Amino acid sequence: MPDEFQFIAGLKRKFDLNRIGDDCAVLPFSADSDLIVTADMLVENVDFRFEWASPESLGHKALAVSLSDIAAMGGEPLWALISIAVPKERWDDGSLDLFYDGWHRLALSFGVELVGGDVSRTEGQFVVDSVVGGQVPRGKAILRSGARPGDSIYVTGSLGGAAGGLRLLEEGDNSRPGSTALLRRQLNPQPQVNIAKYLQSEHDITSMIDVSDGLSSDLRHICTASNVGAKIEAELLPVDVGLAEYFGIEESMQMALNGGEDFELLFTSRKNNISSVESGTITRIGEVTSNVGIIEFIRQGKNCILDPGGYRHF
Amino acid sequence: MPDEFQFIAGLKRKFDLNRIGDDCAVLPFSADSDLIVTADMLVENVDFRFEWASPESLGHKALAVSLSDIAAMGGEPLWALISIAVPKERWDDGSLDLFYDGWHRLALSFGVELVGGDVSRTEGQFVVDSVVGGQVPRGKAILRSGARPGDSIYVTGSLGGAAGGLRLLEEGDNSRPGSTALLRRQLNPQPQVNIAKYLQSEHDITSMIDVSDGLSSDLRHICTASNVGAKIEAELLPVDVGLAEYFGIEESMQMALNGGEDFELLFTSRKNNISSVESGTITRIGEVTSNVGIIEFIRQGKNCILDPGGYRHF
Repeated sequence: MPDEFQFIAGLKRKFDLNRIGDDCAVLPFSADSDLIVTADMLVENVDFRFEWASPESLGHKALAVSLSDIAAMGGEPLWALISIAVPKERWDDGSLDLFYDGWHRLALSFGVELVGGDVSRTEGQFVVDSVVGGQVPRGKAILRSGARPGDSIYVTGSLGGAAGGLRLLEEGDNSRPGSTALLRRQLNPQPQVNIAKYLQSEHDITSMIDVSDGLSSDLRHICTASNVGAKIEAELLPVDVGLAEYFGIEESMQMALNGGEDFELLFTSRKNNISSVESGTITRIGEVTSNVGIIEFIRQGKNCILDPGGYRHF
Repeated sequence: MPDEFQFIAGLKRKFDLNRIGDDCAVLPFSADSDLIVTADMLVENVDFRFEWASPESLGHKALAVSLSDIAAMGGEPLWALISIAVPKERWDDGSLDLFYDGWHRLALSFGVELVGGDVSRTEGQFVVDSVVGGQVPRGKAILRSGARPGDSIYVTGSLGGAAGGLRLLEEGDNSRPGSTALLRRQLNPQPQVNIAKYLQSEHDITSMIDVSDGLSSDLRHICTASNVGAKIEAELLPVDVGLAEYFGIEESMQMALNGGEDFELLFTSRKNNISSVESGTITRIGEVTSNVGIIEFIRQGKNCILDPGGYRHF
């Protein structure tokens, strides 16, 4: 059976779907702006667990993951649809009020308006589909496909924290000092909308994606879409500072490479000196190469080939 | 506990959501056009059953219900997102290929492009969220809220057929002559996009909705949004001609009044002589009154008050 990326690639070919395959679809609409839209489906016990996430934090996260897709195009989020299907118990126990409270608090902070959606019922699992629409200046959406050999590769913030938080939750170990920051990375992700708008307007960004599947997978997506390779250096990676004391150096590095859901931005630029700004830190981690499809990983002077890791549903 | 309509009304009040409550949200975007968007969540064993609907016909229906919402605004559908969550068996057995085949066949006939979506996994139920975007000339979306006393009330096509088809499926009785047409009404609904565009451009339509919940409920939605009442006549209702032989006159009338999923258009106009056109039949069924919130139903010279029927998830 195909995995989910192969399945989507197959749909694209079969039906000649040219707008699928980036963080958002880009649709021309007016003389000044393009419309961008994205959808994210979250399923209980698959994409989240109520043992770990309150309904409020689920509401926050459902919106955050879609805002992160808008950010990855350099866009401005404007409106959203929420479709939910919930079991009878969750309808009756007030969970939905808390879900929408968490959703709305984050929406307010980015000026996003809830304009529609749907409600249905399930036999067990809570399912939410989060759709967000936004805009970018016409023709200025930052795609995955513009990276060119010689471009520098950058990432915002730090990597691996969300995977570390997930591991703590899985192990039931969330009371030690320092765990709070990792748990927040997993349960309360912050979409990098503001730094994305800064990058879009101030710098010559050639490609961008959000780190949702994991750095190795998401860098692979850029390389595939741009028909290039990449070389990144272990010593440059902004590994989350809270990871090492729990998991040691080696596992922390694996989490930074393959852990998903950090919702940072991974991007490329002709410029090699983009530095941090008020809205967030930016780190140069390597460069784009002409070695098509190959991601080289340099660590302690040794050079190996990085296979894409990260979570898949199928 | 609130029912789903009360819940949505509560959300609107709490968060001051002014764009929620019609078939689509209407969003200004360019000087010439407004963007309209809608979402419909379908859940296995709640909104459909694979014993009755093939994956192909589910793909068709998932799109049809959203196209019907676009039609209800007098709009032109343009693009769509599909988010699905499926159990492992359905991923492995080829159901998804058939689902997208059915979806795409209908999409092609209306020039709708699949531009995105998401894939996740469930423990049991197949869940699909269908999102469709489209456009209407700026300021020309037909809302539920424009009906005025004295307007004529119209419906396209015929009513009750989808409910009859559902009953045949529930009773396992689908082999008798004439059942095919009823089953098609339930499993293979046809969105009235073309007649809606004709109505939008040629007539002074004051309000419109699609018959998804059932005539009595959907007429109530128009009355509530427009702050009016309505009077409809039994003898004028275009009851599906295939119903009477299976269910008798009385039950057929109930299906026409309360059966959902016909996906016809219910609309009002100052004009009292709108007649059928090439793209479909149109029947005048009554008129708008100033009797706020009251739907009168006249049958054999007797006048009673119609309570809203139809399906609800909660």
